[in-house]
Amino acid sequence: MVISMDLGPDSYDIVLERGVLRRAGETLDLNRKVMLVTDAGVPPAYADAIEAQCASCTRRAVAPGEARKSFAELEAILTEMLQAGFTRGDCVVALGGGMVGDLAGFAASCYMRGVDFYNLPTTVLSQVDSSIGGKTAVNLGDIKNIAGAFYQPKKVLIDADVLQTLPARQVSAGLAEALKSSLIRDAALFERFERGVSADDMEDVIAASLRIKKDVVEQDEKERGLRRILNFGHTIGHGIEAVTGLYHGECVALGMLAMCSDAVRGRLLPVLESLRLPTSVHADAERVYEAMLHDKKAVGGSLTVVRVETPGDCALEPVAPESLREKIAQVVK
Amino acid sequence: MVISMDLGPDSYDIVLERGVLRRAGETLDLNRKVMLVTDAGVPPAYADAIEAQCASCTRRAVAPGEARKSFAELEAILTEMLQAGFTRGDCVVALGGGMVGDLAGFAASCYMRGVDFYNLPTTVLSQVDSSIGGKTAVNLGDIKNIAGAFYQPKKVLIDADVLQTLPARQVSAGLAEALKSSLIRDAALFERFERGVSADDMEDVIAASLRIKKDVVEQDEKERGLRRILNFGHTIGHGIEAVTGLYHGECVALGMLAMCSDAVRGRLLPVLESLRLPTSVHADAERVYEAMLHDKKAVGGSLTVVRVETPGDCALEPVAPESLREKIAQVVK
Repeated sequence: MVISMDLGPDSYDIVLERGVLRRAGETLDLNRKVMLVTDAGVPPAYADAIEAQCASCTRRAVAPGEARKSFAELEAILTEMLQAGFTRGDCVVALGGGMVGDLAGFAASCYMRGVDFYNLPTTVLSQVDSSIGGKTAVNLGDIKNIAGAFYQPKKVLIDADVLQTLPARQVSAGLAEALKSSLIRDAALFERFERGVSADDMEDVIAASLRIKKDVVEQDEKERGLRRILNFGHTIGHGIEAVTGLYHGECVALGMLAMCSDAVRGRLLPVLESLRLPTSVHADAERVYEAMLHDKKAVGGSLTVVRVETPGDCALEPVAPESLREKIAQVVK
Repeated sequence: MVISMDLGPDSYDIVLERGVLRRAGETLDLNRKVMLVTDAGVPPAYADAIEAQCASCTRRAVAPGEARKSFAELEAILTEMLQAGFTRGDCVVALGGGMVGDLAGFAASCYMRGVDFYNLPTTVLSQVDSSIGGKTAVNLGDIKNIAGAFYQPKKVLIDADVLQTLPARQVSAGLAEALKSSLIRDAALFERFERGVSADDMEDVIAASLRIKKDVVEQDEKERGLRRILNFGHTIGHGIEAVTGLYHGECVALGMLAMCSDAVRGRLLPVLESLRLPTSVHADAERVYEAMLHDKKAVGGSLTVVRVETPGDCALEPVAPESLREKIAQVVK
């Protein structure tokens, strides 16, 4: 299955196909110098398979954790490319989760002001979320994604086979973003979640979720308006993420629960339970509130949140940050 | 005088006007947070004048020298912006030479994936050369401009009044880029150089040179083809620059001399002499050759050079790097 992103000169295809990584060289132009950025959590066999298909491969496995999504790591990648004699005609491949995609994508956007970038996401979260959008970035201190570029990949390969080796908790956390997409834009997908999602459904659910994000991003590539609806659950979610040890998707699940109507909450709770996603967390609500304000989206005083009143339909709403204290209290106890 | 750059959604105006810096707030939206990046060589009175027109100004004077055009300095600028609470709606202003423009422009392109950038070049070289093109970058070790972005400013202000305080040698070095533009594209401008250029002519010469670059960049914003003609004199020039203590424009003058026909050389020599630009330099020609290959444009084996056979007309030509040894020997002795 191919989903084509229509972004004028920056258009590209997302190829969803089981086993596509083993045949990557048929779809991507790897007959040149390739900077393969991966992370320590990705099975080396996947990286070996890609490397075997490259004319010349420089491989770098980034240590896990957000701390490595830094300017120091970016500079190290660019320096490796320089030392290996990369030109503008060469390319960067990201193989891993969202962190690797963000970091490698930013490196591709910077090197000689831009070389080809291929994104090969290997987690549910990155397949669903970061394979569309063109957002690349590094962190600055403890502030996430503060420096980066909008830079589209030349191609994205999504191989559902690689999900088999993922821990169940990580799969569920990734599905939280697909669930988010359904709540803001696609009632039928939400109903599918209500009926229950099995391993065999993964490719379909990922594709449905990508189509929603495609539709939104094509209308607002640079995040000037509509695209903010993709932040549903993320304002409070980021605050929870900064304070607790929960996964990103788990925090988004809690953030969504806090920002939907009572009617939606009644239907969302059993879905979260079936996915073994949290429905509340023990933490200091005031610290979550402070962390939320510290997050870039809250800088500057005004705050726009996304509300879902019925599944598949959402609205942007400016609010006073203080009004979110009671929302936080619904899920942080 | 206004020169409008026509680059679709990235279009912007270049305003050439004596005294325009003192009235910058009338032309730019400074009624927000402004990151003012300048360099130690710019008279503080100019920066004071800009700061007085800003709602809220964070000022950073970068120490002189290419070594400060680094990721470390970039990160420092972004960190200052973060600490001062800059949002996507705020802006960056570059006030200084090309180094400041490249660094501040890259910071603007990165911060939250892009904030408004205003470029206020204060040297002849930066007014002529870096106010058009959208090239921003930092160096990586001793390799110049290896990491950066194509990022267009929202507005460029060129105030010829500020040139009065520049040393004559720096003015001449800047004019070398205008001379380059004339040789590749505008015989009439070259003839004007042959008749002699005085201080009163500066604004006209800068404008003529900008119109040439505008024409080329509008046809090839991302440097995929035509735009390479702007590199006339730069391949050998960069090699000379890496090895000698000469200014960039002086090295370009030597590089042009090496890459033009005998007929053009006969007319170019007296022009360079009238501008007190060098016509030869004492250095180790082999080191210049090695440095030229080390430069990014020579990485990878093939090398495209620009030749001028008659003033105002040029051609791109692929050459074996070795063939440039004899060209280098014409100016490096």
